[in-house]
Amino acid sequence: MMRKNSRKLHLGNIQIGGDAPISVQSMTKTDTRNVNETIAQIKKLESAGCEIIRVAVPDDDSASVLKSIIRSINIPLIADIHFDHRLAIKAMENGAHGIRINPGNIGNLEKVEKIIEVAKYYDSVIRIGVNSGSIDKKIAKEYGFSATALVKSALGYISFFEKKDFYNIKLSLKSTDVKTTVDAYKMISKEVDYPLHLGITEAGSAFSGTIKSSIGIGILLYLGIGDTIRVSLTADPVEEVKVGWEILKSLGLREKGPRIISCPTCGRVGIDIMKLSSAIEYELAHMDNPITVAVMGCIVNGPGEAKQADYGISGGGGEGVIFKKGKIVKKVMENEILEQFLNMLKEDGIK
Amino acid sequence: MMRKNSRKLHLGNIQIGGDAPISVQSMTKTDTRNVNETIAQIKKLESAGCEIIRVAVPDDDSASVLKSIIRSINIPLIADIHFDHRLAIKAMENGAHGIRINPGNIGNLEKVEKIIEVAKYYDSVIRIGVNSGSIDKKIAKEYGFSATALVKSALGYISFFEKKDFYNIKLSLKSTDVKTTVDAYKMISKEVDYPLHLGITEAGSAFSGTIKSSIGIGILLYLGIGDTIRVSLTADPVEEVKVGWEILKSLGLREKGPRIISCPTCGRVGIDIMKLSSAIEYELAHMDNPITVAVMGCIVNGPGEAKQADYGISGGGGEGVIFKKGKIVKKVMENEILEQFLNMLKEDGIK
Repeated sequence: MMRKNSRKLHLGNIQIGGDAPISVQSMTKTDTRNVNETIAQIKKLESAGCEIIRVAVPDDDSASVLKSIIRSINIPLIADIHFDHRLAIKAMENGAHGIRINPGNIGNLEKVEKIIEVAKYYDSVIRIGVNSGSIDKKIAKEYGFSATALVKSALGYISFFEKKDFYNIKLSLKSTDVKTTVDAYKMISKEVDYPLHLGITEAGSAFSGTIKSSIGIGILLYLGIGDTIRVSLTADPVEEVKVGWEILKSLGLREKGPRIISCPTCGRVGIDIMKLSSAIEYELAHMDNPITVAVMGCIVNGPGEAKQADYGISGGGGEGVIFKKGKIVKKVMENEILEQFLNMLKEDGIK
Repeated sequence: MMRKNSRKLHLGNIQIGGDAPISVQSMTKTDTRNVNETIAQIKKLESAGCEIIRVAVPDDDSASVLKSIIRSINIPLIADIHFDHRLAIKAMENGAHGIRINPGNIGNLEKVEKIIEVAKYYDSVIRIGVNSGSIDKKIAKEYGFSATALVKSALGYISFFEKKDFYNIKLSLKSTDVKTTVDAYKMISKEVDYPLHLGITEAGSAFSGTIKSSIGIGILLYLGIGDTIRVSLTADPVEEVKVGWEILKSLGLREKGPRIISCPTCGRVGIDIMKLSSAIEYELAHMDNPITVAVMGCIVNGPGEAKQADYGISGGGGEGVIFKKGKIVKKVMENEILEQFLNMLKEDGIK
């Protein structure tokens, strides 16, 4: 899993691309003009681990309030712009660290050029966000809504930006179809070295959206492609951030708090694993230490099967064991497993 | 996404490998000896789309009741055996279509040979299930718990089975670590052509287990590897089946009922997309027709952005539209969108 080397950008206080950690982003679902509500949502997202926030800027008032919003938050803000280049300009004037546009719906390239001029002045990042619903009409005629169409659209815009001597670019090529998205990112990553923002567009509910995003983003990251990710869900944006982090943790790309593994339970299990692992997940949710904890259903198999875990517990038939790296370190009563385990973490200084 | 050509096996009334559809399996979480409860759980799993069921057989009584269970269900049954080769034999005598063993914990190869003899007699399938917790000790010493260790363990067992002239084999090489699992399957798929059963072991809760399984199984399927899948979750096994199907649907490998796409909602949205898409997901859950339905937040952008969807709805500001393939076919009142949309599906004969 060698990460493709992309050029590095600065977005407010964070870096994207190159050897910078792959960042997790999300988008507010509030009416941007409702400043207090928007700030409150961003604060919640920050606590969940959101590292870049995007807000919709569909009108003049939304662009004006960005200044107050940015003053109250700690992560860089991207303004999401459609149709009206003046909103993009106003967003940057009001402090947006970056903007996301689809040059195809800005009207014409003269207007895009105006955006570029202002972005140069403020050293703002522009994400060129092409998606399957907004492919250039001529290209769509020849290539349909394929990965090739997404890539050709993106390359066309990139070449325009480069002609205007602007390279502070991030790219996204999103489709609602997982394979099309993966193919498009694979293709574009061979053509250019701009940082890539990964996501599946309109991925759906928390259930299907989580699965589609995990597969699509997961495949690309496995292939070494991608510098920042956003999981789109028709759900609370905090869920998007949680899923994003879990994807990065699953592939060993970032660390954030404990990792709980647990056996799926079967007819052999003598203890309520579902209840126990939920309780552990809850108790450990606020820890920073990236320990791995195994919750296993068999006293006999559990410790061996979970040798790689830093800590583990298993129980059944009134008895329980706590183990470290596969070695049993304490035998306890079944109903005391959780308490004794938390005590041990405390003794070991795990926070 | 060219699927690797594996040899085809027959397991009861279904096929695994070759050009057979990639099947979805799960495992009961009941005490197998509780026949009624076990049958009830399998029936629920069948309704959810489970195509192969595995049950734990930890003792003599569990093996005996398999006959009654199999008589009452419609999908092939696999007995999950650890430690005691006599249970494997008894399970096959009682009609199990296949067994899953980890030859490493059966005791010695003479006992494995006894299992093979009986499997030949009953034409049963044997899954050789190697996982990171049960790697051969000598191999673990040299290779740790790496992908190489999983592959070396598996190849050793396979060569023993082949020497005994037994080829009715399925393989799994599961780790709790996504990358290790992916690497192991990639390596083994180059060495042998037995059908591969994919999964991440002890994947965790419904949340993290869904994500890890989607990434791991998703990467492998994308690479053309895998013939049958099981999502392991510390949750109701019906969830395992649902996630399994969603993975296959997301990659276009199987079809099952409608596919709902929905925009993640943003500050531009004038309608409660979360509520509407949940309602649509609920209303369409029992349909067989694999239509794609888009639930979008903008009357202006929605139809265009979701051109590829068979049907779509969007609304805001009291108005709503229903569209087909990006073309608006009906304007309705916002509060009537759902009802009018369901009527249209009925008129179009979508079931």
